[in-house]
Amino acid sequence: MNLIQKLERQDLSNLGQELHHFAAELYPICRSITGDGLRQTLAKIQGRIPLQTFEVPSGTPVFDWTVPKEWNIKDAFIKDRRGHRVVDFRSSNLHVLNYSAPVCATLTLEDLRPHLFTLPEHPDWVPYRTSYYKENWGFCLAHNQMLGMRDAAYEVCIDSTLKDGHLTYAECLLPGRSTKEVLVSCHACHPSLANDNLSGVAVATFLAELLMQQDLRYSYRFLFLPGTIGAITWLARNQANVGRIAHGMVLAGIGDAGVLHYKKSRHGNAEIDRAAAHVLRHFSESAKVLEFSPYGYDERQYCSPGFNLPVGCLMRSVWGTFPEYHTSADNLDFIHPEKLLEALRVSAAIVHVLEDNRRYRNLNPYCEPQLGKRELYRSTGGPHIAEEISARLWVLNLSDGEFPLLDIADRSGIPFPTINEAAGLLCNAQLLAPVPEGLGNGVESDPNETGSSAAVQSSISSSA
Amino acid sequence: MNLIQKLERQDLSNLGQELHHFAAELYPICRSITGDGLRQTLAKIQGRIPLQTFEVPSGTPVFDWTVPKEWNIKDAFIKDRRGHRVVDFRSSNLHVLNYSAPVCATLTLEDLRPHLFTLPEHPDWVPYRTSYYKENWGFCLAHNQMLGMRDAAYEVCIDSTLKDGHLTYAECLLPGRSTKEVLVSCHACHPSLANDNLSGVAVATFLAELLMQQDLRYSYRFLFLPGTIGAITWLARNQANVGRIAHGMVLAGIGDAGVLHYKKSRHGNAEIDRAAAHVLRHFSESAKVLEFSPYGYDERQYCSPGFNLPVGCLMRSVWGTFPEYHTSADNLDFIHPEKLLEALRVSAAIVHVLEDNRRYRNLNPYCEPQLGKRELYRSTGGPHIAEEISARLWVLNLSDGEFPLLDIADRSGIPFPTINEAAGLLCNAQLLAPVPEGLGNGVESDPNETGSSAAVQSSISSSA
Amino acid sequence: MNLIQKLERQDLSNLGQELHHFAAELYPICRSITGDGLRQTLAKIQGRIPLQTFEVPSGTPVFDWTVPKEWNIKDAFIKDRRGHRVVDFRSSNLHVLNYSAPVCATLTLEDLRPHLFTLPEHPDWVPYRTSYYKENWGFCLAHNQMLGMRDAAYEVCIDSTLKDGHLTYAECLLPGRSTKEVLVSCHACHPSLANDNLSGVAVATFLAELLMQQDLRYSYRFLFLPGTIGAITWLARNQANVGRIAHGMVLAGIGDAGVLHYKKSRHGNAEIDRAAAHVLRHFSESAKVLEFSPYGYDERQYCSPGFNLPVGCLMRSVWGTFPEYHTSADNLDFIHPEKLLEALRVSAAIVHVLEDNRRYRNLNPYCEPQLGKRELYRSTGGPHIAEEISARLWVLNLSDGEFPLLDIADRSGIPFPTINEAAGLLCNAQLLAPVPEGLGNGVESDPNETGSSAAVQSSISSSA
Repeated sequence: MNLIQKLERQDLSNLGQELHHFAAELYPICRSITGDGLRQTLAKIQGRIPLQTFEVPSGTPVFDWTVPKEWNIKDAFIKDRRGHRVVDFRSSNLHVLNYSAPVCATLTLEDLRPHLFTLPEHPDWVPYRTSYYKENWGFCLAHNQMLGMRDAAYEVCIDSTLKDGHLTYAECLLPGRSTKEVLVSCHACHPSLANDNLSGVAVATFLAELLMQQDLRYSYRFLFLPGTIGAITWLARNQANVGRIAHGMVLAGIGDAGVLHYKKSRHGNAEIDRAAAHVLRHFSESAKVLEFSPYGYDERQYCSPGFNLPVGCLMRSVWGTFPEYHTSADNLDFIHPEKLLEALRVSAAIVHVLEDNRRYRNLNPYCEPQLGKRELYRSTGGPHIAEEISARLWVLNLSDGEFPLLDIADRSGIPFPTINEAAGLLCNAQLLAPVPEGLGNGVESDPNETGSSAAVQSSISSSA
Repeated sequence: MNLIQKLERQDLSNLGQELHHFAAELYPICRSITGDGLRQTLAKIQGRIPLQTFEVPSGTPVFDWTVPKEWNIKDAFIKDRRGHRVVDFRSSNLHVLNYSAPVCATLTLEDLRPHLFTLPEHPDWVPYRTSYYKENWGFCLAHNQMLGMRDAAYEVCIDSTLKDGHLTYAECLLPGRSTKEVLVSCHACHPSLANDNLSGVAVATFLAELLMQQDLRYSYRFLFLPGTIGAITWLARNQANVGRIAHGMVLAGIGDAGVLHYKKSRHGNAEIDRAAAHVLRHFSESAKVLEFSPYGYDERQYCSPGFNLPVGCLMRSVWGTFPEYHTSADNLDFIHPEKLLEALRVSAAIVHVLEDNRRYRNLNPYCEPQLGKRELYRSTGGPHIAEEISARLWVLNLSDGEFPLLDIADRSGIPFPTINEAAGLLCNAQLLAPVPEGLGNGVESDPNETGSSAAVQSSISSSA
Repeated sequence: MNLIQKLERQDLSNLGQELHHFAAELYPICRSITGDGLRQTLAKIQGRIPLQTFEVPSGTPVFDWTVPKEWNIKDAFIKDRRGHRVVDFRSSNLHVLNYSAPVCATLTLEDLRPHLFTLPEHPDWVPYRTSYYKENWGFCLAHNQMLGMRDAAYEVCIDSTLKDGHLTYAECLLPGRSTKEVLVSCHACHPSLANDNLSGVAVATFLAELLMQQDLRYSYRFLFLPGTIGAITWLARNQANVGRIAHGMVLAGIGDAGVLHYKKSRHGNAEIDRAAAHVLRHFSESAKVLEFSPYGYDERQYCSPGFNLPVGCLMRSVWGTFPEYHTSADNLDFIHPEKLLEALRVSAAIVHVLEDNRRYRNLNPYCEPQLGKRELYRSTGGPHIAEEISARLWVLNLSDGEFPLLDIADRSGIPFPTINEAAGLLCNAQLLAPVPEGLGNGVESDPNETGSSAAVQSSISSSA
């Protein structure tokens, strides 16, 4: 049973609710690029899927960067002269400038003002701000609330620590028949923001759960890590192994009501790019494929020129283009069970293409085989050919060992699952056989899949 | 005198009538994929062009298929209780399920019903149905007529034979200067259906007649054969020789009032594909070029992956997309003299491109030659350049031995005949010379065309 | 300071006036493809830029052509019976058929008529006509004026000489760090026609003046020569050296009010073609890029198949498509200071791209470098990335030694100057270094630019 079928078999509306519920469970935690909030988050993920957690000491050089001090926070507030907490970390962890150094002082409003961050254009929303690499402290609050602050002086307190410790990230490795890997990466460092990126964390976690139940061609490595510095740290520690990454995608911002977007890898025509484009094209007319750009999520690091990995990014509303982005309005109401479920299904469909996108060889390549005598050609008498029959003809016609199924699906305009099913039927009818893998297609072969040297030779030349 | 000129010189409206008349002559014959109707048809074609007929015994294995038993039929009817023929083979050979086994019986209407085929959505038309590979018998009739059958029982008789015999097909080979061949194939197995495919048979026959009067660069092999099994049989018997096929097209369904369509070969960018697209583009704005697909006419066999021959298909209304397809409405009124003539002219224009699509070398490649002193540049004084002058400049500019004339025609947007004529004038003025053929361009050289080794070398590299 | 900055620093409206003034200065001279008018024109250009003048004797064979006799003219007129000059060379040098042989006679109007050229569709304009290669004489006049000629006979006089002499052309060579050259060519043979081509002559002259003040990567060779025969003569005399021409453009007809057009070289995707297309795309939405065609200005000769040089043509209204073309209406009112200035700026911007279109290597290719600590990433907190920041990310991401800056500009959609500036900043920050030139990129290296063999090796492979 394949992934898509698994997804269909589940009580789907319930699965959407479960995704949302998981995001809701993680929502209150005050995460950052280091610290206990991140650790708690990873622990909750580990409750669902096997996770190996890594701790990297502060000060560790990672390419051009250095792992920063670890940040933790217990409390923070601004009190007015009556001792009332006008800004309170306990009501929302967005209220504190993320990575704020500890402070405890009474300041005039004038001195306090440079430490206050608001969004005048959305005066009721609290912005999300960070200062990871320049020591600072501050508070984020609704603009309207700031307008109401009229005391001459305020007591401010940020009960945080910023000292040597560790950066934490986690991996979930699901071994497949091949050591070639599919990378699924999401950032898990944002505090109470739902779409960015608890949606990505939830979908990645559930995708891993689905794949755990599956016999896999590729190995899958899921990364849950702090954005930017986490991806950089992971790449620095795994530089020698990136050659095994055959495909990859970043999952981020995929729970809101916007249309689905897939942003291509730097390569632009990698198999993951074509697989995602195919799935999105058949999934919805409104889904869009975007060209690569060097800004966005962690695909920036995977696609830096030294690595140039075939890693794209699946999202709904695009990074930075919606007003709720990086504000308190990116809350649990901003993400929707059915949208999370859609994202999971699309992710699984992309994985499905990668898993089954193989080359086949027509064992009867001279003229059409007689499908009728094998009950593979429904003789309706009418002129119209059903898509499933058409899929068989396309697979037979293009399976000369050169074109993998995704090429056949794209050229015929028929969805990949239908093409894939046709290939299965034709294999059963001994009209088709898979081209042995192992050379030229990036996936290592099973010992029992090694073909004759002639077939291997053909596989090599066709991949040129 | 070239083909196009020949066509222009004829009394054209008369030629259209002749084509229609020939189709009408063949129309009443009860053809099938084997049998005497097919033989009679080939005999009538042989009345116009030299034809070699082949007989392949029943039971002969041809790739995944087997040549079936031969079918012949004398009579068939359904009689009501008063002895009246309510369905009568003598009034239309479509009334019998093609390849019906003999039967002679009296059946209740209930038992007869599974053997009756009608078209409820076109209740006055008789469908065309076949059962070549599953022994069966049956009658095809108008749906309205079936509704009127209210007797309790009917006498049915099909006076056919289905026994070991032969599959018949024919070739017309017109030798050219080269042994490389252009294949023109059409199926000749359908009984009283005019567009599908007496139109193709008639146009192919007349095209062969025209080419017989011509000095030819390529050899031309016209095939008249039963659809599917005939093409498979021919390929099975000629597998060793298909390498000589340089270009090819299937002619089918080209007499109706629909716009012209050319369906590309599997290769998609073969010279025949580009030649046909060029001709259609200049012939009519409404003519359409279709991508290859593995369903349609016999191009399916020529383009199967083991052969992958550069064979496209020229049609008017596309296979299976018009309601008259495979019904009694595809009769002699459905095809039109002027449409048949158009198809002949377009076919001839495509052949013309193939015949004259050669590479030339500008003998004066450094700067423009002075056309004025050779009376090749009309000095109007005005800024506009006539297309014939423009054609000369394009041919000179692009004739570095790399670009054949079709490339020049496509890049300039000028019709091939004008480009070709310019090349001729420039050769006469000794400003241009053809690149010797024989290496790298798929056409064998005449002994007197062999160029110097340097020129040959250049021809090789330019075709890379 | 680069070219664009130079242009901005000048009093721009004044520069447009200067261009127009220079054209006006040249306007009255009676030029032809040979003779003293051409020499005077070159002398005036020499007043602004260093010019080397060449004299090629009549009768010199140049490829398929021969340098013609030299033509000079003092006076010409048609007098009526009262001795009144009805057509007078002194009022416009267009009145004489250019290259008219001397004549002095009295002719009946009937005999005169074949020597009179008019434009019936623009009855008040005088056409510009020539007869370089077929000895003839004649007068050009307004059609309405001709209609008023009712005398029985007229005295005609053309006081010209047509005898062995020289064809004159001039070069302005501005040496750069490389011996590879950019060719800028314009025809300087038309008499009193402003757009065609005093606009080109003026812009080329001023562009050379600007470049004289500049440290140049390429050497620049400006050609001022008679159209067609001059370009042919130059190519014949410099055939051995054309290999040093890396890029080139013809400037012609660039002072009128029409939109800018760049016509591609025969190659179609040469660096000059891409540079010009980039500049035009960002300069104006209405500017257009045209495919190559073998008619137009002297790019016809540079792009003849034996040379096939990467030379395009920059114009405003396209050759031959505007009614004023080759008539007295192409006068000083037809060209505009601001349009000439625009043409100069666009020419300079194209040169700027060529000069700075280099490959760079990201010195920190693994993950993004930390721009923040280098003050190269403005931390606005907002999601929108300023174009200048975006440019830095694009340059870093694509600078793997393969993509020159123009590719990065095109892929990112960011104007070249912004991309170039980003590269400069990143070099200063030691995050980027230019790939040493000298191999594989068509520009010879300075001795002090020779990189390590590894870097050179990479440069070679990336250009493959």
